[in-house]
Amino acid sequence: MLIPFSTLKQELKRVLVKTGMNEDRTDLCSEIFAGNSRDGVYSHGLNRFPQFIKSVDDGLINVNAEPVVVGTKGSIERWDGQLAPGIYTATKAVGRAADMAIENGIGLVAVRNTNHWMRGGTYGWQAADKGCIAICGTNSIANMPPWGGKDATLGNNPLVIAVPRTEGHLVLDMAMSQYSYGKLNEHHLAGKKLAHAGGYDENGNLSDDPYAIMHSKRTLPVGLWKGSALSLMMDVLASVLSEGKTVSGITSTGKEFAVSQFFICIVPESVNQKIIDEIVSYAKSSAVIDENSSVRYPGESTLRRRNKSLSEGVYVNEKIWEEVKGL
Amino acid sequence: MLIPFSTLKQELKRVLVKTGMNEDRTDLCSEIFAGNSRDGVYSHGLNRFPQFIKSVDDGLINVNAEPVVVGTKGSIERWDGQLAPGIYTATKAVGRAADMAIENGIGLVAVRNTNHWMRGGTYGWQAADKGCIAICGTNSIANMPPWGGKDATLGNNPLVIAVPRTEGHLVLDMAMSQYSYGKLNEHHLAGKKLAHAGGYDENGNLSDDPYAIMHSKRTLPVGLWKGSALSLMMDVLASVLSEGKTVSGITSTGKEFAVSQFFICIVPESVNQKIIDEIVSYAKSSAVIDENSSVRYPGESTLRRRNKSLSEGVYVNEKIWEEVKGL
Repeated sequence: MLIPFSTLKQELKRVLVKTGMNEDRTDLCSEIFAGNSRDGVYSHGLNRFPQFIKSVDDGLINVNAEPVVVGTKGSIERWDGQLAPGIYTATKAVGRAADMAIENGIGLVAVRNTNHWMRGGTYGWQAADKGCIAICGTNSIANMPPWGGKDATLGNNPLVIAVPRTEGHLVLDMAMSQYSYGKLNEHHLAGKKLAHAGGYDENGNLSDDPYAIMHSKRTLPVGLWKGSALSLMMDVLASVLSEGKTVSGITSTGKEFAVSQFFICIVPESVNQKIIDEIVSYAKSSAVIDENSSVRYPGESTLRRRNKSLSEGVYVNEKIWEEVKGL
Repeated sequence: MLIPFSTLKQELKRVLVKTGMNEDRTDLCSEIFAGNSRDGVYSHGLNRFPQFIKSVDDGLINVNAEPVVVGTKGSIERWDGQLAPGIYTATKAVGRAADMAIENGIGLVAVRNTNHWMRGGTYGWQAADKGCIAICGTNSIANMPPWGGKDATLGNNPLVIAVPRTEGHLVLDMAMSQYSYGKLNEHHLAGKKLAHAGGYDENGNLSDDPYAIMHSKRTLPVGLWKGSALSLMMDVLASVLSEGKTVSGITSTGKEFAVSQFFICIVPESVNQKIIDEIVSYAKSSAVIDENSSVRYPGESTLRRRNKSLSEGVYVNEKIWEEVKGL
């Protein structure tokens, strides 16, 4: 069903207030959770909200904790997230990296002991709104086997790259598995198969069944050996830069909390819009494979969905919406 | 056949001297070309050398040109490569980014009008040798269709991520096509099929025939739509940061020269080796798929091949070796 964005945000805020979260944070967190659904990333919007509340109840998230700076070096800051809500800390961290970049061209904030940032793209959009180029990453609980292996010893460790653009920012938000667990679950909830093989079933056969893959935990890395390697490097970047927990350390607790993240912002002398438009229009000049295909730039679908959600209402899964209303 | 590293380097240097290249550059360039073959990246070592010489003869590479700084902002420098050899300029640029990072935690050099850097990993190894974390990228001529399209309007735009490690650096060097053109050509020269589908043939069918894919120019992006998007973003980063040519601009000349690159170096307060080792050993703790499989960290095979080449000799394709000896 479709509901107004303001209704969705208000309802999420109501629940957040009940956790004892400070007013300003309830506003930010409900805005971002609702915004993720508004932008079509349901897996990390409303659908993920009950799990967030459960994590608060379980003591994994300290709703009013304040991240602290634990180290600095030039245009680098290292923070301890103090297990505050990941959304809050990521917003603050990318904001600080943006300020350093505005001042000095480039800035980096790395955060240990933070929590799930939900949709990584959120912080790409935030940075781009401030005129910054951004490169951000996080690690996660182990949920993907490395190339050549069958046990999940890598995270899907999303990478975000954003570039500000007048006609709509370019924002890449990619997990290192071909399908994120959020996307797998979204297909599962909708009773849909995947369009491409997304991992292996219990018997080691490639599968397009989201449930079978979630069950085996054998997701397929993006680009086979390449995404496996990139995932490992994302874990190294996030953990080394923040001196925080690795995928191994997170996984050993059995729960996905106290993760590590980094946020690089860049503000060059200028962000030449003609250069970006040339790249986008050249990519789009390719003949399409068939009449059902289109060539899109990263962020294009997001913006289209956002505009549609704002004019027609945000899609919510009725079952989860009812669950949240009961919280 | 196997030849000593010093013999390979010496022979390449002899040919470079004949182009009129200054002594110090002939030493650097022959070291890196020979080093690429030594490290097992034959496609961008000896195998690519004749093409480099042809590009010099064609006036696309100015052997003794010196890159110039055209813009600065805080810890960012923007250079014009003046069409100097890409190997020379990339070495100098990553060195400057490293110096800025040592000084200020993080530094970025973006270069327009530079030339092919051959193996991107080279600059990751260089940065890591200086104790720097590095994130580097380049664009290229269009050689890959975007997801949904069939004309090549994206480059394979390699991404390099390197992290210094006592027992052997972690260095990821990935082109955005599942197989780089270098790798396709290497398989073609060896008369081998690819282990996985690497693109489409002329009829639009997925193929493991390297020649058919090189001919159709329809390489498969890493992770399908994800690598397509990442490739586009790499072009945006390289072109916007350097204010240089895009994939479109490079392709319009019909020749791959005057490309755009960026080099980010990071020197945090410390690079905790225990964190890196924890990540590597956890990844390797996965049970392997079968007895022919292994789990490796990015850079592991490179280091093994390097050591083997140095003790037993560097593999050279005899035909190309004879060709180079005749130059």
